[in-house]
Amino acid sequence: MPAKACLIVIGNEILSGRTQDANTIFIARRLAELGIALESVHIIPDRPARIVETVNLCRAAYDYVFTTGGIGPTHDDITAGCIAEAFGVRLTVHQETFDALMHAMGAKKFNAARQRMAFLPQGAQPIKCAASVAPGFRIGNVYVLAGVPRIMQSMFDALAPTLQKGPPLISATWRGRIGEGALAAGLEKIQSRFPELDLGSYPYESATGVHSVALVAKGYAPDRVEEASQEIRQLFLELGVSPEEGEPPVA
Amino acid sequence: MPAKACLIVIGNEILSGRTQDANTIFIARRLAELGIALESVHIIPDRPARIVETVNLCRAAYDYVFTTGGIGPTHDDITAGCIAEAFGVRLTVHQETFDALMHAMGAKKFNAARQRMAFLPQGAQPIKCAASVAPGFRIGNVYVLAGVPRIMQSMFDALAPTLQKGPPLISATWRGRIGEGALAAGLEKIQSRFPELDLGSYPYESATGVHSVALVAKGYAPDRVEEASQEIRQLFLELGVSPEEGEPPVA
Repeated sequence: MPAKACLIVIGNEILSGRTQDANTIFIARRLAELGIALESVHIIPDRPARIVETVNLCRAAYDYVFTTGGIGPTHDDITAGCIAEAFGVRLTVHQETFDALMHAMGAKKFNAARQRMAFLPQGAQPIKCAASVAPGFRIGNVYVLAGVPRIMQSMFDALAPTLQKGPPLISATWRGRIGEGALAAGLEKIQSRFPELDLGSYPYESATGVHSVALVAKGYAPDRVEEASQEIRQLFLELGVSPEEGEPPVA
Repeated sequence: MPAKACLIVIGNEILSGRTQDANTIFIARRLAELGIALESVHIIPDRPARIVETVNLCRAAYDYVFTTGGIGPTHDDITAGCIAEAFGVRLTVHQETFDALMHAMGAKKFNAARQRMAFLPQGAQPIKCAASVAPGFRIGNVYVLAGVPRIMQSMFDALAPTLQKGPPLISATWRGRIGEGALAAGLEKIQSRFPELDLGSYPYESATGVHSVALVAKGYAPDRVEEASQEIRQLFLELGVSPEEGEPPVA
């Protein structure tokens, strides 16, 4: 069984529709490669009670919890304080981080607001990265990352080697011009022969409006995914459709 | 107080990183226009226990619950059955939907798999839309929509007039070339004078790599948003930056 992970996206800007979340798909893909199952994503507002409650529920339920957002210098950056509260510890100055920020900015720019970025929950380890002097941090099984995608990605790259890897999630995809209702019975039979795989059916339209479907087999055992993949290909052929392999081109 | 809403995105394809979720930002924007506060998004796998549990938690906690995904004809389309289980009712054939699908497809194409799309939880009302003969449905405060964005959007358009509207969420944005740490103290003072608004600070980089920040004031009272907007503009000016109004151009 792969390790199980949960992502908490902290951000009013996602919930108001200001910003298209780009962090979920990045973390989802990287965890799939690392053989860790992303089982849940919560997108919640910048409100302390919601953050504390969600972090405590998730850290009890999952092997790994990742959060994005709310670790900058402004008043709406409340994640570190909420994580400290969730763990019942104090926020304290992390001297190495304080010194690094002071060195990078100089005393004049390193004002009280920016000094907040040097405060971590007691016992947290900084997650240093190439994209930012201000670090993310880990405490227990919770990894606290920036919201800005470029910085979040750099932090994820830095922490990834410390995670418990498993066999990567493998997927195989066939697509063709047919309604998914025509494939449904055959696909269900294949699913019943491969109960350990996820078989998914995703209708889509090509740029020219042609109704097509992508059938996807996903799992952690490459041989089984390949067997299911061949059965899916055969299912298309039996229905008179010559399928193409791989994801549809972006319309 | 605006009505409170929650979105449940049902989809292994989002959690595996196969698909970029596009439904959250659409629903978030439409709810903001309708004056309904989106307070939570859950992205969960196609697993019955998770769907039933999440729906029951959310329908007790929010005025409106929207779900996307899992209402097609294939074995992985399990949302309707899970909603029925969450409400403690049976799935039953919805005759009007059955007849409409039969009429649209003809008896030969309307096989057992496609007939599943005519089964709704007992007491549910179909959400008919222009983009699909197979409807979404409403039961209690739960609105069950398709996962394919074009069809989901058509269903949302169809149901929107039935929601309890409020004053729309208004936002004002100023942006300029300055670090957010330099603005933080002033922004916090503005926030303290406008406790009913959400003031957010969002650093970004232009296409040429210039570090900039967008300050956003959001709320339901246009006069107050406008007052805060002018204070934000003044804050930039006091720091020697001539801000531009509006969201940054997409880099």
